[in-house]
Amino acid sequence: MFSEFTVASIPQIIFGAGKLNELYELIPKFGNNVLYVIGESSLKKSGKWDEISSRMEKKAINFSEISIRGEPTPTLVDEAVQKVRNHKLDVVVGIGGGSVIDAGKAISAMVTKHDSIKNYLEGVGTKTHDGRKIPYIAIPTTSGTGSEATKNAVITEVGIEGFKKSLRHENLIPNYAIVDPELVLSCPKSTSASCGMDAFTQLLEAYVSPKASLFTDALAKSGMIQIKDALIPVCNEKALDITTRAAMAYGSLMSGIVLANAGLGVVHGFASSIGGMFKVPHGVVCGTLLAESTRMNLKKLEHLGTEGKKGLLKHAIVGALIEGNESLEGLDILYYCSVLIDTLTKWTNQLNINRLSEYGITKTDIDKIVKKTSLKNNPVHLKPENLKEILITCI
Amino acid sequence: MFSEFTVASIPQIIFGAGKLNELYELIPKFGNNVLYVIGESSLKKSGKWDEISSRMEKKAINFSEISIRGEPTPTLVDEAVQKVRNHKLDVVVGIGGGSVIDAGKAISAMVTKHDSIKNYLEGVGTKTHDGRKIPYIAIPTTSGTGSEATKNAVITEVGIEGFKKSLRHENLIPNYAIVDPELVLSCPKSTSASCGMDAFTQLLEAYVSPKASLFTDALAKSGMIQIKDALIPVCNEKALDITTRAAMAYGSLMSGIVLANAGLGVVHGFASSIGGMFKVPHGVVCGTLLAESTRMNLKKLEHLGTEGKKGLLKHAIVGALIEGNESLEGLDILYYCSVLIDTLTKWTNQLNINRLSEYGITKTDIDKIVKKTSLKNNPVHLKPENLKEILITCI
Repeated sequence: MFSEFTVASIPQIIFGAGKLNELYELIPKFGNNVLYVIGESSLKKSGKWDEISSRMEKKAINFSEISIRGEPTPTLVDEAVQKVRNHKLDVVVGIGGGSVIDAGKAISAMVTKHDSIKNYLEGVGTKTHDGRKIPYIAIPTTSGTGSEATKNAVITEVGIEGFKKSLRHENLIPNYAIVDPELVLSCPKSTSASCGMDAFTQLLEAYVSPKASLFTDALAKSGMIQIKDALIPVCNEKALDITTRAAMAYGSLMSGIVLANAGLGVVHGFASSIGGMFKVPHGVVCGTLLAESTRMNLKKLEHLGTEGKKGLLKHAIVGALIEGNESLEGLDILYYCSVLIDTLTKWTNQLNINRLSEYGITKTDIDKIVKKTSLKNNPVHLKPENLKEILITCI
Repeated sequence: MFSEFTVASIPQIIFGAGKLNELYELIPKFGNNVLYVIGESSLKKSGKWDEISSRMEKKAINFSEISIRGEPTPTLVDEAVQKVRNHKLDVVVGIGGGSVIDAGKAISAMVTKHDSIKNYLEGVGTKTHDGRKIPYIAIPTTSGTGSEATKNAVITEVGIEGFKKSLRHENLIPNYAIVDPELVLSCPKSTSASCGMDAFTQLLEAYVSPKASLFTDALAKSGMIQIKDALIPVCNEKALDITTRAAMAYGSLMSGIVLANAGLGVVHGFASSIGGMFKVPHGVVCGTLLAESTRMNLKKLEHLGTEGKKGLLKHAIVGALIEGNESLEGLDILYYCSVLIDTLTKWTNQLNINRLSEYGITKTDIDKIVKKTSLKNNPVHLKPENLKEILITCI
């Protein structure tokens, strides 16, 4: 049987080095009043913000800006919305890493509401957002979250009762995504590494998800092919190479499109629970847990026998793709599954992705984490003891 | 260098057998007043129209319908718009083959205007459409044009001064595409054949287009893999097999997404010129010209030497994909190019695609046709004598 599927809309995408310039032609399509949501420092340090401001002034476009520090909290979003609610706003532009893009997405959606974003977060509030928003243009400066193509904004409140939850609606997919690899050139090595691991995690998890379709499979593979060759070089000798940065930016963009349609797995289940309890960069959680989580998934899939065969095959295809083999004929499933695991482990080591203990997480936290971890669209059921086993190896 | 690209938005897609049912949940999202644009007979003959009407009545949704006969002309669109301009309309739903989907798309865009569609057609009128429209839901009942995912509506006026031109705007991409292979089950063999050849032509032309990107390449290959195995069976013993119909519907949908982003080649250049001058089904023009046009493209690419290598490689990849070989390692380019040509020729013969002479086209028409034929995004330049050579073989 041919599987049924749905595809959420995707943004209009403008991809390529130097394409930030298209922003100045795009804004007037929406109007003359822009709110910029930007990161706290990198855009300003690089001189890009001065350039943007002066282009805005030359075009006589009214603009204001909000700076975001760290991952967006409900308070941050509510206060930002409060600040701009009475301004005339035609379009919101978010330029930054995943946190900034998510903050901009949330602000553009919450200026149409008169209460806190907390009320609309999945699993936190009781209201459902209706999708009304100010048009939104997303411009990533890291290659990781793919948030420029997704329908959700992740909002975090760190603490014992903390959470990392989404404001989600089909209509929150940005109207435009400008993906300009030049903007990622100044991204530091550790961020490039953790963001790159996040992007690959998203591609892999969406590819092996039970919700995957031919459509998401095609794009996930296309993204993984780019990242597998670019990930290590982009964190080393190719950090300033625009082609390598473009490959990572493409992989990240694809990861956003596929996760919006096929969902994610247990690694992002952990990212949600751990991210709500501790201050750990999202990409680090993904990077440090990916290899062990995949090893556990494969072990469980093997135990399933016939029922697990499809899942094993899909992992093997990724292993084969990593070795440059796209042919399925005579594919040695177990061999290529081990290629996948070995590669993920090697990448984690080569990229010096921090272990969880670096962020104050200890073995005594494991039970609390496991309790709050959902499997999302993981390809196989995992028991609490399986989750514990993964965590113990990564602390 | 990593190529730059743009991606137009795509519709929200609901794909699967029986998914027509989702329409009744979707309509209220837009409002209570629907205009249906449908074909002249097949939907009514199959009893589907009665089912839709009774569901509408049960839900107390106000609806009216317009029936379309043949390919939409400017007069047909203008008259339809005239008829409904003063109705309250919240959403337009087009259910039918490519002509019906295009007619619905054009009507939903022209009710916001007060003059003829002719003024807005590319290469015919002088005005540019601004993209304002009534929301549009497209539901194909053939697997061919992919119009449910494109930003243009093809409008035809047949005659000496005839044309086949597009109303085009990013915003004309349907809001939703419901692709339900059950609706294609009753499609007759000859239509399945010519539509299938059209879809494959679109996938191939977009794949070898100079405007192709990694994004369109991934989806074009994904579509071709489905069609290459389903095309002949769907016109024979598998006409009532839902999985085979779904494979064709998927390929057709992908063809719409990739053509909207990568453009088409000389076969669609011919389809435009010939379709404006003679009453020939669009799919027949594509089907009958595809093999010879591809043969000519390959001949010219070979002559180009190094410059033609990339084009040859892409054709070879399609040949290899047809043989089930997705590996590029040691790919024998010339062998797989000939596999592609041989397969296209075989398909055209097996499917009994009519030759152009069946529609009154003779050798004396060749000069006129060539004069009006544009190359669009063909991978290689062709001279008028090359176009003549293609046509002579197909009359």
